[in-house]
Amino acid sequence: MKIAIYGYGNLGRGVECAVINSVDAELFGVFTRRAPETVKTVSGCNVYHVDDILNYKDDIDVVIICGGSATDLPTMTPDLAKSFNVVDSFDTHANIPQHFNNVNDAAKGTNHTALISGGWDPGMFSINRLYASAVLPDGKDYTFWGKGVSQGHSDAIRRIDGVKDAKQYTVPIDEALNAVRSGLQPELTTRQKHLRECFVVAEDGADKARIENEIKTMPNYFADYDTIVHFISEEELKRDHAGIPHGGFVIRTGKTGINHENSHVIEYSLKLDSNPEFTASVLVAYARAINKLYNRGDYGCKTVFDIAPADLSPLTNEELRKTML
Amino acid sequence: MKIAIYGYGNLGRGVECAVINSVDAELFGVFTRRAPETVKTVSGCNVYHVDDILNYKDDIDVVIICGGSATDLPTMTPDLAKSFNVVDSFDTHANIPQHFNNVNDAAKGTNHTALISGGWDPGMFSINRLYASAVLPDGKDYTFWGKGVSQGHSDAIRRIDGVKDAKQYTVPIDEALNAVRSGLQPELTTRQKHLRECFVVAEDGADKARIENEIKTMPNYFADYDTIVHFISEEELKRDHAGIPHGGFVIRTGKTGINHENSHVIEYSLKLDSNPEFTASVLVAYARAINKLYNRGDYGCKTVFDIAPADLSPLTNEELRKTML
Repeated sequence: MKIAIYGYGNLGRGVECAVINSVDAELFGVFTRRAPETVKTVSGCNVYHVDDILNYKDDIDVVIICGGSATDLPTMTPDLAKSFNVVDSFDTHANIPQHFNNVNDAAKGTNHTALISGGWDPGMFSINRLYASAVLPDGKDYTFWGKGVSQGHSDAIRRIDGVKDAKQYTVPIDEALNAVRSGLQPELTTRQKHLRECFVVAEDGADKARIENEIKTMPNYFADYDTIVHFISEEELKRDHAGIPHGGFVIRTGKTGINHENSHVIEYSLKLDSNPEFTASVLVAYARAINKLYNRGDYGCKTVFDIAPADLSPLTNEELRKTML
Repeated sequence: MKIAIYGYGNLGRGVECAVINSVDAELFGVFTRRAPETVKTVSGCNVYHVDDILNYKDDIDVVIICGGSATDLPTMTPDLAKSFNVVDSFDTHANIPQHFNNVNDAAKGTNHTALISGGWDPGMFSINRLYASAVLPDGKDYTFWGKGVSQGHSDAIRRIDGVKDAKQYTVPIDEALNAVRSGLQPELTTRQKHLRECFVVAEDGADKARIENEIKTMPNYFADYDTIVHFISEEELKRDHAGIPHGGFVIRTGKTGINHENSHVIEYSLKLDSNPEFTASVLVAYARAINKLYNRGDYGCKTVFDIAPADLSPLTNEELRKTML
């Protein structure tokens, strides 16, 4: 299958690497809103301008759209789904039903197949919430994120006066994780589940006490959490906090038995060196599935819930039953 | 959907509890090879003789077959798949391809839908091996079992002269788990991955040293493992080792990035108070899926790899997208 990348930031670069490392995918190239000659790709693949994509309708099996959920994907994905099979990582949970309907109308109307909200949350975490709740209906699930970098929270700190640069880690709290694993189904507050750890480079002469206070009291972002602020040098930030790690946990505990006497714990966790590269790897696996569905004539918009596991693999069903069941 | 249970041991009782606790399943009754009037069910549901099952062809949506993999299921599942939609937990990994073909022929020929090898291994563990390998193709996965009771190993000890009763726990070794989680993709021997802990009740006057030696040197079962043997009283065995707990871990580590420079860990684990009740809960979720597939006209034999997550849930796709994605 030939894959095109639409949008070339961290996620687009991750898709590029994942396609190159895949046994059955070929990279058609990257489409960018910038001047193509100014974009240097990791692999040296072809770069095209987004305005030209319709010229390559017959050369591309799946377009993986690597735009942002806030403003790019709500229009990009339905537009592209009129001409291509597409995969995106739309992650504004509350707007998924609307986005689904828009993409479904576009894809169904033109006999294309689309997958929205691939990645790990939404994505692999969603699947695990669903499997666990189907298997243990009498239970409760919990999602924890981290330890990992939150781009949104890092940006929020950078907007504070006197801050030169910053990186924020979301950290799940061990006591909360262990309380969940105990099976007691605790009610946990926002503050009990996660803490926020910030590494901040202040401008010369800036009032660090004021900056720390502004961070810790910032509504929505920090006020509901215990927040730790470290002031470090620009060199330290570059040396120790250059990566984009992330991860998290989906845990469901539940009961079985005629008197609900037996307890069970299902736990799924991710520990990722690179959030965008892992997300990209999930998108490439789902591009494979979408291509299979399209070839079977199964059109319209799908989510990870609608895709059978076998369709994600390059192996045949016979091989899978023999080697992995 | 109306569910019948075919075979009434620990697993059958687990299915009975899971159906009763389900929002959308109704228990038709239990079919047994014993004299029905001698079987007392947990819920007081109807009990029928297996010979009469064809009389109820139109009253049952799915038959969950709770027989053993060694001698029952290889004939039971294909036979019943000629007249019913069926789900089994066939777990002899090496014979799955043959069993699949037999059940597929029976189900396809009569327009029924079947699922084989439901449960957790094969089952939920298999799904996790598949998802993880599809997402991280450049990686390696490991399955660990336990801590949990192995019926086969417990039986093997009981066959030793001078042993009155016994329970054997398979225990994953922490050092091995942590070596795997490190991402170094170690090669691990059988002995490095699991140890075997045995609780043995000896007959009065039996030679415990001989029993311990016979256990530890038993080929296939114990000789390749570090084995710990505890002699305890019958009362202690009943008091402390009456349960059937189990569980385990599926861990895949893999690399991404143009130079394979980033490492990722995907881990799925189960901690189960009751192995048969959890297995049963998985079977009931797959019975729901099989019923949906049947109603869509999707006949033949399936495995957990062929079932989209959404089909396991009693919620609609719209509800799932809204609440779980």
